Order: sequence, then C-alpha cells, then structure tokens
Amino acid sequence: MADTVQEQRSADLVTAEIEQQLRELLDIGKASTASLGPHFGHLWDLGSECLLGGKMLRPRLLMGAYAAITDPPSDNVADRRAALRIAAAIELLHFAFLLHDDVIDEDLTRRGAPNVIGRLLHEADLARGEEVADSRALHWARSSGILLGDLMLSEVHQVFAREPLADSTRRRLLDLLRRTTTESVVGEHSDIGLGDRIIPSDLNTVLEMSRLKTATYTFEFPLRAAAVLAGAPPRLEDALGEVARHLGVAFQLQDDLLCAFGDSREHGKDVFSDFREGKETAIIAYARMTGAWPNIEPLLGSPDFCEADAEAIRTLLVECGAEGFVRSIVDERIRAAVEITSREATAMPAALRGFLIGIIDSLDGRRV
Amino acid sequence: MADTVQEQRSADLVTAEIEQQLRELLDIGKASTASLGPHFGHLWDLGSECLLGGKMLRPRLLMGAYAAITDPPSDNVADRRAALRIAAAIELLHFAFLLHDDVIDEDLTRRGAPNVIGRLLHEADLARGEEVADSRALHWARSSGILLGDLMLSEVHQVFAREPLADSTRRRLLDLLRRTTTESVVGEHSDIGLGDRIIPSDLNTVLEMSRLKTATYTFEFPLRAAAVLAGAPPRLEDALGEVARHLGVAFQLQDDLLCAFGDSREHGKDVFSDFREGKETAIIAYARMTGAWPNIEPLLGSPDFCEADAEAIRTLLVECGAEGFVRSIVDERIRAAVEITSREATAMPAALRGFLIGIIDSLDGRRV
Repeated sequence: MADTVQEQRSADLVTAEIEQQLRELLDIGKASTASLGPHFGHLWDLGSECLLGGKMLRPRLLMGAYAAITDPPSDNVADRRAALRIAAAIELLHFAFLLHDDVIDEDLTRRGAPNVIGRLLHEADLARGEEVADSRALHWARSSGILLGDLMLSEVHQVFAREPLADSTRRRLLDLLRRTTTESVVGEHSDIGLGDRIIPSDLNTVLEMSRLKTATYTFEFPLRAAAVLAGAPPRLEDALGEVARHLGVAFQLQDDLLCAFGDSREHGKDVFSDFREGKETAIIAYARMTGAWPNIEPLLGSPDFCEADAEAIRTLLVECGAEGFVRSIVDERIRAAVEITSREATAMPAALRGFLIGIIDSLDGRRV
Repeated sequence: MADTVQEQRSADLVTAEIEQQLRELLDIGKASTASLGPHFGHLWDLGSECLLGGKMLRPRLLMGAYAAITDPPSDNVADRRAALRIAAAIELLHFAFLLHDDVIDEDLTRRGAPNVIGRLLHEADLARGEEVADSRALHWARSSGILLGDLMLSEVHQVFAREPLADSTRRRLLDLLRRTTTESVVGEHSDIGLGDRIIPSDLNTVLEMSRLKTATYTFEFPLRAAAVLAGAPPRLEDALGEVARHLGVAFQLQDDLLCAFGDSREHGKDVFSDFREGKETAIIAYARMTGAWPNIEPLLGSPDFCEADAEAIRTLLVECGAEGFVRSIVDERIRAAVEITSREATAMPAALRGFLIGIIDSLDGRRV
C-alpha cells in the first residue's frame, strides 16, 4: 500500500492521527471510570495499552479509502476529523470484540503476549504471592474482560451517535454499524457452535461463518464508512462494499492457510493453534468430505498436539486437496475484486482505483 | 402506585404500550439475525421471551414520571411515543446486563425458572439425548449469553442514537446513557472483585457498589430520562435524580434484607442464595466489623448450606446489629427522599410529587 518513501511517510502520519483520536476517545472512558474507584480505572488502562499496540488495519483502511475518494483532498477539516473519529471507533469495536472472543475462547495471550485477561491474572497471582492461577483470579480476569468489552462497545456507539454529522449521514453510518455488529456477533456465534459441535459442519456454513465473523467488520465496514463519510453516492458505496466483501473473505481464508501451512517465524501467529483447538476452518470442512478424513480426525483437537502430528496433518490436507481448494477460493475472491474494480472504473475516482489495487496486490501472495 | 381501580387500569394500559414498543424493538433484531441463519434467530427468540416476561419496573417508572411531569398530558403524540421507545430501550439495557451477570455468576435460573443460558443448555442436552450438561453444551450456552447481551446492548444505543429528538435532548439522553452504563458496569466489576476476594471488603466499598450496580440504572436513569424527555429544566431533573439515588440504594438494600431475612414464599427469590454464594452485601460488610464475625464467617459460601445454618446466621446477624444497621440506612434513605420531595415542592408539579410519594410509600415497609 506504500510504494514510495513519501507514501510511507504519509501513511505513518495518518496512523499517528488515528492513534491520537483513539487516545482522546480512551481518555473519555478513563475519566468516567477512574472517578468511580481504582479497579476499573486500572482495567481501562490495561485495555487501552493493549488496544494502542494494535496494527490499526481497519482505521487505516477507512482513512486510506476516504483520502482516495476525496482526492484532491477536501479542505473541510471538520469532515476529515469526523472520519478520523469514526475510524478510531471502528478500532475500538474491533478491540471490544477481541475482548469477548478471548473470554469465549479462554485465551490468555494474543500474538504471543498476554492479553488483558492474561495480564489481570498475572497481577492477581502476584498480589497473592501464588505461582499458579487460582479459579477466583481467573473468574475475576474473565469477568473483567466481559465488562470492559461492554463498556467499549457502548462507547463505540456513543461516538456514532454524537458525531456532528448531517442526519442522513448519521443514519447511513448507524445502519452500517448495526449490520456490522449483527453480522460479527452472528458469525462468532456460528464459529462457537461449530467448535462445540452444536452446529453441524459443512463447507457452506464454515465459509459463511468466516465472512460474517471477520470479512464484514474488517473490510466492508471501513470501506463503506469511508464512502458514506466522503459523501459518495450509494452506487460507489455498494461497489466498494462488494470489493471489500471479496477481499475480507480472501483475507480470512489466508489467515487460516497461514496458521495451517505458513511460517510462524514470518507471520507470528501461534503455530498449529487451529489444529490444537480443533477449529472448524474451511480447510477442515473441505477435508471432512474426502477419503482422508478418517486419518485427519484423530489428530485434531489434541492438547498434546506435536510437530510430528502437524507434519502428518499438513501432508494429508495437501494430498486430499483441501489446501488447494481453499487457495483456489482465495484466488477467485481476489479475481472478483479486480473485476469489480475494473467494471466500476468510470464510477470510481482514479485515486480510489489505485488504492484498491494496492490492497489487492498486498493480499495477493500474502505471507504475513 | 395504583390506589384506585382507574389508576390500576391506566397502569395496565401503559404496561401494554411498553410491551408493544419492546416487541417492535425486538422485531428489528429478529429480522436482522434470522436472515443470517437459524441459530442466532432462535437465540434472539429465547431472549425475547424471557425479556417480555419481566416486571417492566424501569420503563413503568419512566412513563409514570413522564406522565406526572407533563400533567395535564401533552397532546404531542410523537413526544410520548419517543418516551415509550426510550422506556423500552431501558428495559432492554436491563436485560442485556442480566444476561452478562448470569454468565459471570454462572447462573442457570432466574426467579426460579431457567434463564436463557439454562434454556439453551436444556435444548443442547435434549438434542444429544444426554441427561447431564456436558462442558461443550455449557460453553455454547454461556457464550451465547455473552453474544446476545452484546447485540442487545448495541441495539439500546441504536434506539438512543436514532430517535428523532432535538439535538440538545439527544445529547442529554446520551450523557445519561453513558453515565448509567459506566456506573452499572463499574458496580458489577466491584461486586465481582468483592466476591472473588480481589477487592478487600469494607462497608463503604459495599454500599458504593450497591449504588453503582443497581440504584443508578433502576431508579436514577428512568426518572432523569423522563425529565429530559418531558423537557423539564435541569433543576427538576437533578432533584429527581437525587430522590432516585436515595430510593435506588434503599431498594437494593431492601433486596439484600429480603434475601437474608424475608419470606421466600412472599418475595419469590432463591432463599439464602446470598449466604450460599458468600455474597458481600452491606449486611455482611457490617457484620465483619463486629465480634460475631468469627462465628458467621465459617457458615458463608458453603455449597451444602442448610436451613439450620440459615437460622444460625440470621440470629447472629440480628444480634450483632448488622440487620438493624442496614434497616436504618434504608429508613434514612427513604427519609431523605421525602425531604427532597418536600424541599423542591415549588419546583415540582403536584402530580409529580404525588407520583414520588406513591413510590416512596410502596418502598416503605416493602415485603416483596
């Protein structure tokens, strides 16, 4: 997305602006919780630290698209500031979802470092001088994750409700927020149901779950929001939404492929965690339909899953065609995004086309 | 609150109107979730059923105060409909909080009947033909509770953000919503910290926890919202807020007293559940400071807590003065509410004074 030194510098500036907005947003919650006692104020601080360490993928997408649609840049500073605030709120929404996901998945780390729950647990253990987490400390840490997520989710909505925007713009953004929240929650619910074997697995269910859980709020929400904030006509918003939907699914399936077949030294994810947890990805859903399944199934979901199991399962997943099948969907989705971008060429400003092609290129052959 | 047949009939009509608004509100979530597959749609239905079986205390308080402030009734139908929608949203907020409380407290019932989590668990067991809840079914049920709560919490904010109101009115309501959500979440966090013995117990911490967790959103939020929606001046809103705060604390402490000393055949709560769970109420926090504590402590929090333990603990709590102390705070808070109502008599419409005195009378000597 940043080919030249100048583009990189400009991207860094935008990231700094987003972080500044996020800090201001987090200060509101800090002020209102800290006045009510030290414990929640501290929890808010922990959350803020973890949040500000993120990659800001979603707000950067929004601001990149916003800049491309309003090229040459609008001289309305207030409009751009509104876009920055909505972008920051989308990152906050992402973090609120992560908090609840971590409670649900019983995770104590994220990308190799302790998450909010892990950090609280560690503090509670330190305070008691105990080495091992006891059940009360774990209950406290997980419950704190639920409540912090609730308050952050509420604050996201406060931003959308309060931003001084034209009524029709606010209404469109609120519609987007409702659809996004609903799809993400339903997608997460489906993911849990598949993992707990309450919802029977099949390939369509798993692909739809991926789209709902991640694609909508990671790609479609920021790109559509950019169009709305830039005052783009509905046709352009819909075209962007369509491109974003394809890219979002490709991105999620790439994540699944990286976790299963990628190099953890490059991508930094917990290697084989999906196998160890027995996660129902599109790769696994495809493998279920093949003759290799009876050999794959016993290896999945074992807590003492080891490197040798991983090698065995990788080979089976390649041989049965699951890996190739999922890669073909990724390619197909990326091709569809390219096609829409060409088809809508007349409706899209040149800068926006360039921006989308930059994202598409960065996804094509993604290794991290 | 309803002395005559006519008043009762009018109260029933308002309750029916609130339920109608709630149904319309729930239909929005139903439509958007059901289109994404059967599982979440079903979960939404379960939640809606449980929600509509509630007592509607908070929306009835809001509409009662609204009617009293706008007496004689405003002929602006749109204004009254806005009040009904905000009232319904407050009930939805209450239910979203209950869902997350039930996850956190690991409760499967509420008021003697299975809650949403209990019902989901029962269905999952039936589907598997198993008698006993297995851990995956429990995980599915609890995770569903978190996600349904998230979506309902989001929808509450959507109502506040979308209601066509004057900008200043919306801003005041959003401020109220933010303060209420924050205080309730912080209060719940404090309750958990006390229960898990992470936050050291003392009487002030426990009293403040009670106020934050329950008083704000049960009394202060609906009464202040009524004032804002009726276009009352800030002074009247603040007076109502002050009365509501006192009544809210009295109400919560009465709940604690009823659970410990009341007649479960009358109030319908799980008898002695607070003792069995070792809950940190104001009664217990007071008892900690007395010489009776060494005799009380070993009885609390035992899973095989029995009727004889309960009798022993009740006697000890009366003898050490804990019961009398908490009753004296209840009386004091009710007296303070009466005093403010008299002090602000000139600023308050007669109908509003009558309404508040009705609530105060219903709390004074409350047995259910």
